[in-house]
Amino acid sequence: MKLSEFEFISRVASLLSQQGVEVPIGDDAAVVRGEGELLILTTDALTQGSHYLKEWKGVVEELYYLLGKKLLNVCASDVAAMGGEPKFGLVTVSLTEESSDEDAVALFKGLGEEAERLGVKVIGGDTVKGECELFNMALIGRGEGYMVRSSARPGELVGVTGSFGDARGGLELLKEGKREPWSLVEKLLNPKARIEEGIGALRAGVECGTDVSDGLLFNLSTIAQASRVKIDVESSLIPISRELIETFGERKALEFALYGGEDYELIITFPKELKEKVEEIGFKVIGKVSEGEGVFLDGKRALIKGFEHFKEE
Amino acid sequence: MKLSEFEFISRVASLLSQQGVEVPIGDDAAVVRGEGELLILTTDALTQGSHYLKEWKGVVEELYYLLGKKLLNVCASDVAAMGGEPKFGLVTVSLTEESSDEDAVALFKGLGEEAERLGVKVIGGDTVKGECELFNMALIGRGEGYMVRSSARPGELVGVTGSFGDARGGLELLKEGKREPWSLVEKLLNPKARIEEGIGALRAGVECGTDVSDGLLFNLSTIAQASRVKIDVESSLIPISRELIETFGERKALEFALYGGEDYELIITFPKELKEKVEEIGFKVIGKVSEGEGVFLDGKRALIKGFEHFKEE
Repeated sequence: MKLSEFEFISRVASLLSQQGVEVPIGDDAAVVRGEGELLILTTDALTQGSHYLKEWKGVVEELYYLLGKKLLNVCASDVAAMGGEPKFGLVTVSLTEESSDEDAVALFKGLGEEAERLGVKVIGGDTVKGECELFNMALIGRGEGYMVRSSARPGELVGVTGSFGDARGGLELLKEGKREPWSLVEKLLNPKARIEEGIGALRAGVECGTDVSDGLLFNLSTIAQASRVKIDVESSLIPISRELIETFGERKALEFALYGGEDYELIITFPKELKEKVEEIGFKVIGKVSEGEGVFLDGKRALIKGFEHFKEE
Repeated sequence: MKLSEFEFISRVASLLSQQGVEVPIGDDAAVVRGEGELLILTTDALTQGSHYLKEWKGVVEELYYLLGKKLLNVCASDVAAMGGEPKFGLVTVSLTEESSDEDAVALFKGLGEEAERLGVKVIGGDTVKGECELFNMALIGRGEGYMVRSSARPGELVGVTGSFGDARGGLELLKEGKREPWSLVEKLLNPKARIEEGIGALRAGVECGTDVSDGLLFNLSTIAQASRVKIDVESSLIPISRELIETFGERKALEFALYGGEDYELIITFPKELKEKVEEIGFKVIGKVSEGEGVFLDGKRALIKGFEHFKEE
């Protein structure tokens, strides 16, 4: 595989007709109009080697149980970014000769518990014996409407949920065989999709949203590009947890917050009049939208780099 | 992995709440009631090693193009078995360092063409770099109603589409590095989901159906078990292609027809009054349903064995 993930997607997307699809390939999730309802559809996979390492079980015994929860939340985060409510899931499990029955069952235990918590029914699946461990979920949600990346307007503010960089901090800890501070490792292995915040934003009248899976700056740039606007962010306003700063120092913590992926927080842009409303829902303002292009950090054009599965480091 | 696929599924299914789901895990596809419509949901994966070998490209150059078509039809066959119409697809692609860009693009070309032919929109996907090649599709369909495995009734007839064993014949040919007769290899690599026949059967009033992915006798046994009935089949009535008999001889051809998987034909059971109607749609009668249990071939209890991904040969 020589193409990057984004090159590959843009090359194959042209082979797939999107005629009559309300929100086609390219946003967090696709939206189609059913008979009297909007269906929001997305799919995501977790693979050994790319998304987790079996060795982590030595540090976090409940690894597969947490991966089951994560699998659902990663998909649910896409639905949340559209302002939708996840409803039905399909899961595909590829296991190897080396996969343990206990791990696979633990994954379904975590998945089942999380589905219960989120009101999602996991109603189908496929299990295959493959040459790698891979867990895939397709999630079908419903929406009263939807937020997209392409509707940011000059004059709007940029808001985010939660804090950034913790998952990346957790990854660094696991690489060193550590599991403390647990809040960082937990953010990596057990993220919680911001479903209520997404629905709340949509109901408040917000039209533009995405989730942060590839890094804050990278995902801000997907909004800037899709909406053809400039986004200005102030680093002092970006929420960063005390645990991250205490563990890695201020400079590293900011780097993780800007570039570390897998935060699964939401970014929205919204007219100033909605500020109080969206702050009540739990969003914090970190910047603003204006005419132009690109993402700027403290007034300087930001270097955009995101986590890419296919790209060599 | 020590559990068989079926043991594994039954163990994890209990971890996933199915409350309020119209047709839960365990049939060809799941059915949920949307607002004013029935959604039919299914997912299937094709993996290197289990479902295809890269070496086959030496024999069938267009391998990945055909696998793209097959991926959609394998899922569509599940929807067809419920009597539904496939509408929206989500695809996950796991590629390795050794995967070629050309192969991956060819797969999407086949998938896109087949989606066009079937009126399916492929509206989302995920691409990951993994340790194996795996292609997964989740398919969402709509139905005016649905057929299930559990509604066969004593006194009904058993009908099937197409012919059986060809795909298994194609597999044997590929193993020997042959691609002729092409009709057999094509049945393996380019099966066509029986969507019209499924919808036709449902509209005619048929209530029980499934598709043949694991072998004719095995899939007949899933109906017999789910419906708690006995199914009698006459081997002389089972449709077997001339090419299969000419290539492998009558005895081997019958064995492939009974036990070879991946035919992706439909099985239905229906009241005698519907015989003419379902024959017009393209079904052929091969047996009958009565009180009791098990599948009987020419009056003798049939040995049931199906293709199981997890089971050692």
